[in-house]
Amino acid sequence: MGSENFFRKKDIGSIPGTVVYVGDKSASDLYIEVFDYNEEDLVEKELKNITEVWEFDTSSNVTWININGLSHVETIEQIGKHYNWHPLMLEDIANTRQRPKIDEYEEYLYVVLKMLYFTHEGALAVEHISFVVGEDYVVSFQEMDGDVFSEIRERLRSGKGRIRKMNADYLLYSLMDAVVDNYFNLIEVFGDKVEELEDDLFEDNTHEDTAYEIQVLKKEILQIRRAVFPLRDVVNRIEKMESKFVTDKTMIFIKDLYDHIIQVSENVDIYREMIWGLMDMYMTTISNRMNEVMKVLTIIATIFIPLTFIAGIYGMNFEFMPELKYKYSYFILWGVMILIFFGLLYYFKRKKWL
Amino acid sequence: MGSENFFRKKDIGSIPGTVVYVGDKSASDLYIEVFDYNEEDLVEKELKNITEVWEFDTSSNVTWININGLSHVETIEQIGKHYNWHPLMLEDIANTRQRPKIDEYEEYLYVVLKMLYFTHEGALAVEHISFVVGEDYVVSFQEMDGDVFSEIRERLRSGKGRIRKMNADYLLYSLMDAVVDNYFNLIEVFGDKVEELEDDLFEDNTHEDTAYEIQVLKKEILQIRRAVFPLRDVVNRIEKMESKFVTDKTMIFIKDLYDHIIQVSENVDIYREMIWGLMDMYMTTISNRMNEVMKVLTIIATIFIPLTFIAGIYGMNFEFMPELKYKYSYFILWGVMILIFFGLLYYFKRKKWL
Amino acid sequence: MGSENFFRKKDIGSIPGTVVYVGDKSASDLYIEVFDYNEEDLVEKELKNITEVWEFDTSSNVTWININGLSHVETIEQIGKHYNWHPLMLEDIANTRQRPKIDEYEEYLYVVLKMLYFTHEGALAVEHISFVVGEDYVVSFQEMDGDVFSEIRERLRSGKGRIRKMNADYLLYSLMDAVVDNYFNLIEVFGDKVEELEDDLFEDNTHEDTAYEIQVLKKEILQIRRAVFPLRDVVNRIEKMESKFVTDKTMIFIKDLYDHIIQVSENVDIYREMIWGLMDMYMTTISNRMNEVMKVLTIIATIFIPLTFIAGIYGMNFEFMPELKYKYSYFILWGVMILIFFGLLYYFKRKKWL
Amino acid sequence: MGSENFFRKKDIGSIPGTVVYVGDKSASDLYIEVFDYNEEDLVEKELKNITEVWEFDTSSNVTWININGLSHVETIEQIGKHYNWHPLMLEDIANTRQRPKIDEYEEYLYVVLKMLYFTHEGALAVEHISFVVGEDYVVSFQEMDGDVFSEIRERLRSGKGRIRKMNADYLLYSLMDAVVDNYFNLIEVFGDKVEELEDDLFEDNTHEDTAYEIQVLKKEILQIRRAVFPLRDVVNRIEKMESKFVTDKTMIFIKDLYDHIIQVSENVDIYREMIWGLMDMYMTTISNRMNEVMKVLTIIATIFIPLTFIAGIYGMNFEFMPELKYKYSYFILWGVMILIFFGLLYYFKRKKWL
Amino acid sequence: MGSENFFRKKDIGSIPGTVVYVGDKSASDLYIEVFDYNEEDLVEKELKNITEVWEFDTSSNVTWININGLSHVETIEQIGKHYNWHPLMLEDIANTRQRPKIDEYEEYLYVVLKMLYFTHEGALAVEHISFVVGEDYVVSFQEMDGDVFSEIRERLRSGKGRIRKMNADYLLYSLMDAVVDNYFNLIEVFGDKVEELEDDLFEDNTHEDTAYEIQVLKKEILQIRRAVFPLRDVVNRIEKMESKFVTDKTMIFIKDLYDHIIQVSENVDIYREMIWGLMDMYMTTISNRMNEVMKVLTIIATIFIPLTFIAGIYGMNFEFMPELKYKYSYFILWGVMILIFFGLLYYFKRKKWL
Repeated sequence: MGSENFFRKKDIGSIPGTVVYVGDKSASDLYIEVFDYNEEDLVEKELKNITEVWEFDTSSNVTWININGLSHVETIEQIGKHYNWHPLMLEDIANTRQRPKIDEYEEYLYVVLKMLYFTHEGALAVEHISFVVGEDYVVSFQEMDGDVFSEIRERLRSGKGRIRKMNADYLLYSLMDAVVDNYFNLIEVFGDKVEELEDDLFEDNTHEDTAYEIQVLKKEILQIRRAVFPLRDVVNRIEKMESKFVTDKTMIFIKDLYDHIIQVSENVDIYREMIWGLMDMYMTTISNRMNEVMKVLTIIATIFIPLTFIAGIYGMNFEFMPELKYKYSYFILWGVMILIFFGLLYYFKRKKWL
Repeated sequence: MGSENFFRKKDIGSIPGTVVYVGDKSASDLYIEVFDYNEEDLVEKELKNITEVWEFDTSSNVTWININGLSHVETIEQIGKHYNWHPLMLEDIANTRQRPKIDEYEEYLYVVLKMLYFTHEGALAVEHISFVVGEDYVVSFQEMDGDVFSEIRERLRSGKGRIRKMNADYLLYSLMDAVVDNYFNLIEVFGDKVEELEDDLFEDNTHEDTAYEIQVLKKEILQIRRAVFPLRDVVNRIEKMESKFVTDKTMIFIKDLYDHIIQVSENVDIYREMIWGLMDMYMTTISNRMNEVMKVLTIIATIFIPLTFIAGIYGMNFEFMPELKYKYSYFILWGVMILIFFGLLYYFKRKKWL
Repeated sequence: MGSENFFRKKDIGSIPGTVVYVGDKSASDLYIEVFDYNEEDLVEKELKNITEVWEFDTSSNVTWININGLSHVETIEQIGKHYNWHPLMLEDIANTRQRPKIDEYEEYLYVVLKMLYFTHEGALAVEHISFVVGEDYVVSFQEMDGDVFSEIRERLRSGKGRIRKMNADYLLYSLMDAVVDNYFNLIEVFGDKVEELEDDLFEDNTHEDTAYEIQVLKKEILQIRRAVFPLRDVVNRIEKMESKFVTDKTMIFIKDLYDHIIQVSENVDIYREMIWGLMDMYMTTISNRMNEVMKVLTIIATIFIPLTFIAGIYGMNFEFMPELKYKYSYFILWGVMILIFFGLLYYFKRKKWL
Repeated sequence: MGSENFFRKKDIGSIPGTVVYVGDKSASDLYIEVFDYNEEDLVEKELKNITEVWEFDTSSNVTWININGLSHVETIEQIGKHYNWHPLMLEDIANTRQRPKIDEYEEYLYVVLKMLYFTHEGALAVEHISFVVGEDYVVSFQEMDGDVFSEIRERLRSGKGRIRKMNADYLLYSLMDAVVDNYFNLIEVFGDKVEELEDDLFEDNTHEDTAYEIQVLKKEILQIRRAVFPLRDVVNRIEKMESKFVTDKTMIFIKDLYDHIIQVSENVDIYREMIWGLMDMYMTTISNRMNEVMKVLTIIATIFIPLTFIAGIYGMNFEFMPELKYKYSYFILWGVMILIFFGLLYYFKRKKWL
Repeated sequence: MGSENFFRKKDIGSIPGTVVYVGDKSASDLYIEVFDYNEEDLVEKELKNITEVWEFDTSSNVTWININGLSHVETIEQIGKHYNWHPLMLEDIANTRQRPKIDEYEEYLYVVLKMLYFTHEGALAVEHISFVVGEDYVVSFQEMDGDVFSEIRERLRSGKGRIRKMNADYLLYSLMDAVVDNYFNLIEVFGDKVEELEDDLFEDNTHEDTAYEIQVLKKEILQIRRAVFPLRDVVNRIEKMESKFVTDKTMIFIKDLYDHIIQVSENVDIYREMIWGLMDMYMTTISNRMNEVMKVLTIIATIFIPLTFIAGIYGMNFEFMPELKYKYSYFILWGVMILIFFGLLYYFKRKKWL
């Protein structure tokens, strides 16, 4: 997952087509599940070994093979070899750095997406997910356990909706749709974070880290953008391409999916603009606070410095200072100083500094 | 209505084509009205139940069915089933999150717009509105009561203008035109808010919330943009498409509508630039005010600190301080201090700090 | 004229094709003039009533009918009815909010422009101007009296240049060229305002309204942009279109006109960037000035606060303070204080604060 | 030359095709030189009068006629009349406000460029230069004396390189290439100015005019952009057009020229971004300096104000102040004050203010 | 290498096609190596003189000739002459200022790239590298020693992967891929620098040079951009072109390479946005720090200035000041002052200034 450092090292000059997993090695155990279904029947099975998959090759049903754990590169190589997939595609399956894209091969389609969620610590996590789609199968590769497909599994089991009646291309659509739907939730949570920060700024409830938090938000929205924006091209290309893997019946759903991605993209850009606005807001907050501090200082100093001066005058030790002898001097002076005090208060009041 | 949080939750993985209303559930009662007209006759009727609509199916007149209250999803499903509309379209009718768009189906056109207005509290409200247009009918779905079509109803009743003589496509145009015309009013009100804030900034009549108000304006203009900009594509596609639902006679009006949308878009962008300028203005206002405060402090301190020092000198208790004995010392000192006082005043005057 | 509030109200839902003047009602008296000419002859006439125009219908000469005063909508309706013009075009003639555009009708071309000038108060005024061009006539509609066509009238009268030898399309070109040429003058005046402000900023000759003045310049350049930029499309479309109203002989002049508009556009964008730079300059000016103020305060305080402290020490009333008794204490102390004084002065000098 | 005010007045409504020079009238004497050459021979001649040019009309050699001094409009009109050039082209030759462009006429090509250099006072100067290219001649019009073609003259005289063997189109290429090559030098000098300012900012070596200098750089880069960017279209159009004036042999050089212009454009944009960064740097410089000033004030005030207060306490004249009588009070007090002094110094040290 | 000043002088008007090296003359010794291979055999040889290369002309193997040291222009001219390469291409090989591009000639392809790395001093270095590709050879020209091709040499020697089985076009791909792979490493190192600076800003660990460091990062990212972005066009054109030099088998790798370049470009743009954010962060850091300083000053001054004033009052020498005689005055006064002291502390606490 790319939550911390999303640009990771790959060995220079490694032979093209080499399957290298560049994410967290200890990330996830291998987990393989299969759904093999048609309108009437459904077989759901958890597999121990990738070779158990071969038995579904002859099935005329739609087969969904879901594999979690990209660090198990040997499994990817095995399945790739069995189905005779292109080495560069295998490289991309394991390469978590690969951006969303679609590649058309003669025998299959290859789609890369990013699953986004917030970890328990509140950091943004990016999970690499690939789909290989043939005429009657979809193989999905997830970086690790945990996904957004539970509702789809439920629909497959219950047979609700049209999913069991349709082909592999509709399954692909459903999986992609689940990923995109999840973006809406993510954007919503993200939006809450932005609005929380906005409220903090409004209530002048900021601290030294506020600038840093805004910078983190900026980085997160950039990462989200990076995951979401290339999807537009991907889905657009599915719409445009004439492929035996995408049927006309599914096309209208793909169009709907495209609509959703545009909506997510728009929201991403709106939050992006809003976050840039936050920095400006923060700057004015700081400046206003400084103004506040300066005003207190200026009011106190402007009132007491002249008064102290007057007191200083009559603290001088000249032998000939007629006022010192006069009986009411002290009280008159107090009067004068109180006058000055309230006069300045009034002046500041009128200036709206108080 | 999307006045507060315009990105709302949708359940992940809900079956595509499911009609889900994501807005405020208690928003509005169901309200159905029908206008059935041709050049000679007009029938206007308020219906209790959606099934009463079916009776107009056989009419060869133009029929406008207006339905308020998107939360009544069962009604949408009923009419959708009756007219055999596509489930994804039904989903979009209820989905207030859907952005403005146009979909061409074989038997009808589907257009999504956003109605914008300011609530009594001054917040920007976005109302989702859909049109389904067939050869001789327009069905409009509004999120809630209250719209901008009263003038159109009036024209239908009175038979003024060409509306009663034209087809359903002209009715669609008229409804869209009313929505767009309303944008002009909204933009005007919005503009007044911007200019008010600008005047406040000019008259230095700001407060701590000014930054927040500017941020609110930014958000509102982004929401307006989001509603207005996709409309350009919508109307442009109507212009370009060869559909039996849009006649040549109406086309010139569509072109005029396009002109209006471009105008609204331009105004939106102008206000957007102006709002960004406001933040800069506000920053200079704060800084100028700080300068003001600092000047007062500096003037007072610069005048009285040296004077206090002098008074301090002659408050020392050394036994041998010749000046203390001299009879006129005190008065000479006053003279010196008054000289310093006016000298510094003159200095600040010349520096234009006073 | 749109000098103050350039987005004005139009009644919602008014019947499309209704001629409504949305500008200042009392703006201008109706003024009609006609130039009817060919290479040999010229008839120039001021008309009292629009119906007098009909007499030129049969003339085979080029006829220029210039009508000032858009508030006289009944005149526009009369002439529109007489020549059988499209109602939407008549609406646009009176609608000062209409942006520059070109519409091709079968029997005529319709062109909308904006005339820009600075009023005597220095505010930017935008005047709406329309041209209807047929095979042998140009009708121009101006919002009010005063235009940039006096040179063209002169050329028509004197017969200098090629204007009398060419068709109506050349007259259209000449009128548009005069409008665009005037943009150059306007931009020049505008540029002087920008440079004046720049000089003020340079000479630190600013005041509290400077930010407001910059904001006004921003608004004006946005308005100019709004008038100038759509013109590019207008003239480009004239170049591209194959119309009987534009002859090949005129085309090269249209191309030249396009060049000029591009030039104006470029200048507009350059000034736009320069104005954004001004705000930054102003911010640094304010900050520099604050630095100046703070330095004065700091120098005075840093010098006199320690000195005052020393004086305070020897103003204490302890019974046992050996220095007080010593004969030269006072003079030594003066020496020390003068040393401190010049020492600090030297320190500030070296820090370049003096 | 456009070094000071690059948007100059042109009389409104002057007849299109009128040759008007809008630059500095006293700018330059008329200077005419001719190079008439083929692979074997070269005739180089300085002419007194434009009519002497006619004698080269019959030559089958390539003829380069270079004319300096655009203020001599009658000369331009004479040559234009002789060769039957289009009046609008003649207008553009003299119109220094014309942006870079290319016009194709049937009998010749017309190319406008801008020569850029820094004057001795360091201001950016823009010189208008036009080329008219026929099958066997190039006529170049320069605003004034001084150009970047001396190397080309040298190559013509010596016969080095391929210039003497090629046609007029190669001469055009060579002249344009010399202009573009000069842009590289200019950009380099400009870059030195930018880096110098950057170093000044780095070494905190700024003054009140720094903001103004940055604004000047911004304006200069905008002017350079204005001269360079349209050239891309010009050369691109030469590449694309099928003209008898540009031979295949020359095309590869034109492509190379295009590469160079792209490079200049990129550099211009890089400097543009860098200059915008300078303003930010300057702002932080000012703020850092203010911080510096404030720290000095705060340190001095924080140390001495409490000490002065203590001294003030023991300067009071109460009759019953036990400490005053105690023999070591004074020395203890000194000890306390020295402790406070160093305590605060340590505090500031730890805060890294010292 | 372009690490310091990336826009360097070229003599104006030098004859096009002249081979001029504009980099550091003493940069590198001449180094020539040859790999001549097919699936079975490999000859690797280091050459003293360019003429030794001719012996490989007749080989039907793929030949990779790698030449380091662009300052040795005579060698470039020699090989250019031998293979009859176009003079403009030779000029570009030596011209380190040339941006990445691809040129198609009839007999060969010419590709320019930039190799990027950080020097030991941490400065960004840009090395110019060119490839000339024929049907069975690749000639690479590097500005100096040191490259990113060691892994490729290793693969050639060991025969691992498909490199020895493929044609010259695959070698070209491998070399370009190595350069692009290296961009990932570079970006990573660059990213570490950015994040380091970000952490410094977060921990308020900044100094006066921080603004300068950010400006340096800005410049570096601009340079990286300049090297990376044109590559997209280069590879895209390889994908699109139908050339005998690029076989279908290699095409899929080229597509993969294109993907990688897009990824690098995206990362570059993300870092670019992040760096611009840094400047804002730095500004808030400075302002926060100033706030901190001002608060200390204000607290100290606000507490002690009034107290000093009170002490000053009772330091006056009036003969009639009743309090002075009262026995407990002094202690009461201390009580009052302590009250004021803690009262103000409490006030500041509540204001969250402490």
